[in-house]
Amino acid sequence: MAEKIYIIKIGGNILDEVAKLSSFLSHFAGIKEKKILVHGGGKLATQLGEQLGIPQQLVEGRRITDSATLKIVTMVYAGYINKNLVAQLQAAGCDAIGLCGADGNIIQAHKRLHSTIDYGFAGDIDRIDTEKLKHLIDMNLTPVIAPITHNGKGQLLNTNADTIAQETGKAMSESYDVILVYSFEKRGVLKDIHDEDSVIAEIRQADYEELKTGKKIFAGMIPKIDNAFAALKGGVKQVIIGQAEQLPQLLNNEAGTKITNEKP
Amino acid sequence: MAEKIYIIKIGGNILDEVAKLSSFLSHFAGIKEKKILVHGGGKLATQLGEQLGIPQQLVEGRRITDSATLKIVTMVYAGYINKNLVAQLQAAGCDAIGLCGADGNIIQAHKRLHSTIDYGFAGDIDRIDTEKLKHLIDMNLTPVIAPITHNGKGQLLNTNADTIAQETGKAMSESYDVILVYSFEKRGVLKDIHDEDSVIAEIRQADYEELKTGKKIFAGMIPKIDNAFAALKGGVKQVIIGQAEQLPQLLNNEAGTKITNEKP
Repeated sequence: MAEKIYIIKIGGNILDEVAKLSSFLSHFAGIKEKKILVHGGGKLATQLGEQLGIPQQLVEGRRITDSATLKIVTMVYAGYINKNLVAQLQAAGCDAIGLCGADGNIIQAHKRLHSTIDYGFAGDIDRIDTEKLKHLIDMNLTPVIAPITHNGKGQLLNTNADTIAQETGKAMSESYDVILVYSFEKRGVLKDIHDEDSVIAEIRQADYEELKTGKKIFAGMIPKIDNAFAALKGGVKQVIIGQAEQLPQLLNNEAGTKITNEKP
Repeated sequence: MAEKIYIIKIGGNILDEVAKLSSFLSHFAGIKEKKILVHGGGKLATQLGEQLGIPQQLVEGRRITDSATLKIVTMVYAGYINKNLVAQLQAAGCDAIGLCGADGNIIQAHKRLHSTIDYGFAGDIDRIDTEKLKHLIDMNLTPVIAPITHNGKGQLLNTNADTIAQETGKAMSESYDVILVYSFEKRGVLKDIHDEDSVIAEIRQADYEELKTGKKIFAGMIPKIDNAFAALKGGVKQVIIGQAEQLPQLLNNEAGTKITNEKP
């Protein structure tokens, strides 16, 4: 068995809530195993865009990144959010290092090509430098990754944070037993979106097909679960989906939804 | 003799000029010796502040950093400028890694205390983690340092880039022969501010006293030269002041002003 590493993705919502974020970060800092934090951005970039009179366009949940928007997300994600997370983790005793994909060339990507939609400066990942990440982690540093990548030719690119977490998880599986945690605003995958207590504790591939066919799952959750199964297929040992506020319980299998390929 | 390292500070002006910056970065990337880039910010932060209706206040050349301004400089310096420099260096074949002082706790500072002026979130440096910088450099990474530090208690602080370059130079002198280069808009220290050809090629401590007493030096240059002599006193081998566009000539002693304690 390889050494365990947690790759934990936090979404945009918690970033706007000072007390919850601070509690999450102190739990994260307390994880004794090796770990990586991947963060999104969300509201703050949209707010700054509005303040500057740059309208934000979303198509199928993805931001259309024109050059003014790229500037905003680079400032907000790789600057404001990333450095504040790092400073708070440092205060909590975790030797964090903030990185975007250009830093040490850890995540190289290419501009997304799509037959009908021009996503602008949106990046799809080509390669993750796991050796360098591993080297930083061996220095007892904890990478905090902002969802900005680059194409190796000087162009920064906006990249979905869930995808960064998934690809980092798959790539790091060569050297570690990866536990991938997607935290978001719900307590887990819900049977009924209006009932926070309807968390499905565990989903195996076979269950999932049944849940989908029987429409026993909230449609909005499907991309997240597809993402989770893709990660498992790529070598990740376990995916946990749940609420950032419940991080200790998520890691103890006491909360959230565990997505697994394990036999029951 | 210890191994040589170049610590090169680029000021705000060149950051706004695409062609000049690109030429500078390709020269910088071409330096075969170990190297660190320290950058300022300048105009871009002021512009963003204006766009957002946050007036910027400068006292004795230092920005008064209220919390709105801290947010702006964190976004612009540690986000937009830092990550664009890193992406461009990567494209030029230099394995750059962008860092602010909070990253890996490389520069810890405290909020400036002043008897009459409240500088806000301005940081004065306490400690530089040279071991960690050395470790990153030994991985063949080139640190690109943004002028944002932290206090170890979760607070980011705005810190003068000239000072970061000086303190990093002094701290790294324990392990390396440090050549510190301050680049700015002039070709070097000028006898006559209106004559770009009046560059003083070399200034030794004794000359400097004479130049100052005889008022043969432009007053605006004095803080930069004081800074240079402080660096030499702290162990830096040589300080060069000149134009970023002339980087190769500066490093070959063919341009700029060399500040030195060496006997003639």
